[in-house]
Amino acid sequence: MSKFWSPFVKDLVPYVPGEQPKLARLVKLNTNENPYGPSPKAIAAMQAELNDSLRLYPDPNGDRLKQAGADYYGVQSSQVFVGNGSDEVLAHAFHGLFQHGKPLLFPDVTYSFYPVYCGLYGIAFETIELDQQFQIRVEDYARPNGGIIFPNPNAPTGCLLPLEAIERLLQASPDSVVLVDEAYIDFGGQSAIALVDRYPNLLVTQTLSKSRSLAGLRVGLAVGHPELIEALERIKNSFNSYPLDRLAIAGAAAAFEDRAYFDKTCAAVIDSRDAVVAGLQRLGFEVLPSAANFVFVRHPQHEAAELAARLREQGVIVRHFKQARIAQFLRITIGAPEQNRALLDALNAL
Amino acid sequence: MSKFWSPFVKDLVPYVPGEQPKLARLVKLNTNENPYGPSPKAIAAMQAELNDSLRLYPDPNGDRLKQAGADYYGVQSSQVFVGNGSDEVLAHAFHGLFQHGKPLLFPDVTYSFYPVYCGLYGIAFETIELDQQFQIRVEDYARPNGGIIFPNPNAPTGCLLPLEAIERLLQASPDSVVLVDEAYIDFGGQSAIALVDRYPNLLVTQTLSKSRSLAGLRVGLAVGHPELIEALERIKNSFNSYPLDRLAIAGAAAAFEDRAYFDKTCAAVIDSRDAVVAGLQRLGFEVLPSAANFVFVRHPQHEAAELAARLREQGVIVRHFKQARIAQFLRITIGAPEQNRALLDALNAL
Repeated sequence: MSKFWSPFVKDLVPYVPGEQPKLARLVKLNTNENPYGPSPKAIAAMQAELNDSLRLYPDPNGDRLKQAGADYYGVQSSQVFVGNGSDEVLAHAFHGLFQHGKPLLFPDVTYSFYPVYCGLYGIAFETIELDQQFQIRVEDYARPNGGIIFPNPNAPTGCLLPLEAIERLLQASPDSVVLVDEAYIDFGGQSAIALVDRYPNLLVTQTLSKSRSLAGLRVGLAVGHPELIEALERIKNSFNSYPLDRLAIAGAAAAFEDRAYFDKTCAAVIDSRDAVVAGLQRLGFEVLPSAANFVFVRHPQHEAAELAARLREQGVIVRHFKQARIAQFLRITIGAPEQNRALLDALNAL
Repeated sequence: MSKFWSPFVKDLVPYVPGEQPKLARLVKLNTNENPYGPSPKAIAAMQAELNDSLRLYPDPNGDRLKQAGADYYGVQSSQVFVGNGSDEVLAHAFHGLFQHGKPLLFPDVTYSFYPVYCGLYGIAFETIELDQQFQIRVEDYARPNGGIIFPNPNAPTGCLLPLEAIERLLQASPDSVVLVDEAYIDFGGQSAIALVDRYPNLLVTQTLSKSRSLAGLRVGLAVGHPELIEALERIKNSFNSYPLDRLAIAGAAAAFEDRAYFDKTCAAVIDSRDAVVAGLQRLGFEVLPSAANFVFVRHPQHEAAELAARLREQGVIVRHFKQARIAQFLRITIGAPEQNRALLDALNAL
């Protein structure tokens, strides 16, 4: 603790992202990256911006990207907010929409960045237990709250909440913002963006890091009622006028426009997931039902921490969370077919 | 105002950046961009990252860039923080270093984002008048404060504070952070980074948007004592794990490494500034002494707002601030020689 720090800084417990190893030749199944590269059209769009025009500021509003997102999701661009990865979009949403007198609600097992944002912005929260099958029970959220947030599919479980359950949640808390964090929705779920025109309290976030293979470019967005988007814009314009660089705006817009590539790569990941699930089950793993590009698994006879360590010795990295209820689980990203085979071979050899 | 907004949002008065016109063929001298493109080595470094590796997250710490910055400035990488433009770096510094019981101090005429950050983070501030020649008088800052910030050279005046004056400021407020925002320092000043080893309360911010011609890439950094850097890292890691994309890390690091190109383009801008100052003085303008890549000027016979409007009719955009004390000034970026000629010709024809 330094006398120069703002007082809250000493109590911050930052988020710890999955390791980004600097070694090559690892089978990297720990941070839910897409095994396929970005759309060639996205690469070409960035190529067209990689020149002297980088001396000029980008469009502060990222209008080209907002419009591409709006076109893709069938909404107005006034319903779209864009930011430097969905983590930045989430941070602004916590700051601008969740500072109320009542606690924010989220699942006890969920994206571990949520309590970190609460620490950053001084937001009280309560966690709501998932049921024994690690599912969200929407009835448990019908209590006084200053907002509700959860990923759908949930992370790190991969479990999907159907839209009709989300509607019940929205109806039970009409005076609170319900934020559905859809980082993984394209691998097996139906987006709640279909509901934004009917529920002014619904905000949906998306990322280009997973299904659009652009984790390295840092682009995320939010879709909701213009009144919610306005809060995010006010925060953004009081924080950083130009959060997206020229390459990111161009590349992300082109990625939205290339639906054929997106459909093909998502389908390939889903096919691989089916194969990985079958392979893991043959090895005796319990696999939670996944609608994401990862699976959440435990083995009745093996300690998860030890499995992760032994996989790492064989050059395969998966993610293990030292956390109540899920300490015996591993989160394993769906990789390319050869990576998935390497995973199953390594497990088989243990 | 929406019931969904956090209460402070309704009072936010966001920063308004200079216009980024979507028309081509304008002589754009309104946002202090560099007339020369980025280093060819920076372009080549980004080119090398523009491939399938974009499916992978970037290094969350941006170590390659931190090291390149540390090497350039002759400091340790533990003294360097990197972010998504210096505006993001400044935001984190306001949040993490300026929330104390006493007011933050900054000049009455300065970068207009500072009071916006104060609004975002609930920081009380007092403005200190520049003297009649629009210079900072460091004696006026020797009063109780929770921090001090100013650009050097100041914006939008372009006036430079010498290092010995900055040392007096640091010595007079040893319990407060003094943030020197050096966005424009490379065009004629000496960096206060030379002082960071002796003053643990000094933080210096820099950007690659101006002297390194990468406004479109969004990269900034801070240099100071590791204890100050640690506060910024804690905020960053509680906000967004990966603020810099893979292209930005590579391009910015290469820009720091190419000193020859940097020296050549900075010298060319400085030469052009001398020519623009002489031309404006011939037209009867008063020009404040500038150590930046812009000049701040007024004409005794012409209204600044009208001059800006008439220049715009001729396709030349400059910046006018409707603000006390400087409403009769224009801020004019130093462009390429042909842009500067177009400016002077347009003024001459008025």
